[in-house]
Amino acid sequence: MNENKAIPKMAMPEPTLRRLPWYLAYVRLLEQRNIEYVSSTQISKEINVDASQIAKDLSFLNIKGKTRIGYEVRKLVKELTDFLGFKSSHKAFVIGVGSLGAALIQDVGLSQYGMNIVAGFDVDPKLVGTDVCGVHIYDMSELAARQREYGVSIAILTVPVEYAQDATNLIVESGLKAIWNFTPFRIKVPDDIVIQNTSIYAHLALIYNRMGLKSSK
Amino acid sequence: MNENKAIPKMAMPEPTLRRLPWYLAYVRLLEQRNIEYVSSTQISKEINVDASQIAKDLSFLNIKGKTRIGYEVRKLVKELTDFLGFKSSHKAFVIGVGSLGAALIQDVGLSQYGMNIVAGFDVDPKLVGTDVCGVHIYDMSELAARQREYGVSIAILTVPVEYAQDATNLIVESGLKAIWNFTPFRIKVPDDIVIQNTSIYAHLALIYNRMGLKSSK
Repeated sequence: MNENKAIPKMAMPEPTLRRLPWYLAYVRLLEQRNIEYVSSTQISKEINVDASQIAKDLSFLNIKGKTRIGYEVRKLVKELTDFLGFKSSHKAFVIGVGSLGAALIQDVGLSQYGMNIVAGFDVDPKLVGTDVCGVHIYDMSELAARQREYGVSIAILTVPVEYAQDATNLIVESGLKAIWNFTPFRIKVPDDIVIQNTSIYAHLALIYNRMGLKSSK
Repeated sequence: MNENKAIPKMAMPEPTLRRLPWYLAYVRLLEQRNIEYVSSTQISKEINVDASQIAKDLSFLNIKGKTRIGYEVRKLVKELTDFLGFKSSHKAFVIGVGSLGAALIQDVGLSQYGMNIVAGFDVDPKLVGTDVCGVHIYDMSELAARQREYGVSIAILTVPVEYAQDATNLIVESGLKAIWNFTPFRIKVPDDIVIQNTSIYAHLALIYNRMGLKSSK
């Protein structure tokens, strides 16, 4: 009997999952500088996270640090990249090719982190049928058909806020499985759909507020 | 003796500050639909936050709900917009005009949330001296001089990760007071500098991970 097979895939704690990309960014730098080994203490000094926490976070990966030497940098980069899904190609549609949607299509960074935008969708007749940086823009009514054609699972939602829920409903009906929501609207989805809210504008409020507090001291 | 004067400006809890933009996005929709009043219970149904939490969050603002009627929508939009700093104009520099930096300059959404990008900075001779969407790009060496000229407080950091800390040091030396960090690097700054990390690529790892968990069920 192989007990491992009975163990369900473990949900990694979200805080760990949020810290791993920080470690990756740092160890990639070390790799560029041809540094061979790094300890959790060294990472701790750079990243401002407790060394024991780092060791705990990295224990989720298929890598072991050596006593007094630490982790092999190249292997750590590879394991983190694989684990975080940055090496695979995840196909995505951009829903709403306005200013932010077009910007995300143009951003080469996303593809370096495993996201491959294969098409855009809009309702504006001036946009439909055009190409943005080699990515074709279809009419929203074609979403279900194109989902079947491209086999895409991820929708990047960049429509104006007043269309956020309607667009979400269409995305779910069209068979996509995850929505990366850039609108400030709290969209509602069935339980089996993955949602990630990335409201960059909401972060502005945090900056303004903290600046006000610091300057009033 | 006026006791109010002795009370220091209160730091709003960050979770509250994160929720307020959601309420704003929703009540703006109601305003567009000419709806006059909204209760915390109605907001609660749309936003999926407890009604008592919403009432508590809104108690930080200069607005009172009426029993059985709720909040005046127009006043709530105005108070939230003011409170969150979206109505003021906050000048910002973009540091690193690569793919993401240029995308942020082009995004009209930022100005609607009170952020006014007045100049960009880069080290690439091909970029320096050009304009991106009417925003002039200067050499990084001019940062301190341009900070004095424009009176800018916010730096939007979009340099490649290997330059993140060096660029941060220059930003701090040049007299800017807040850094909106889009790199996945954990930059280090003095205590009086405001930092907001918005690592959109790190959010990709969260999406990929949750998709893997849901599809393996």
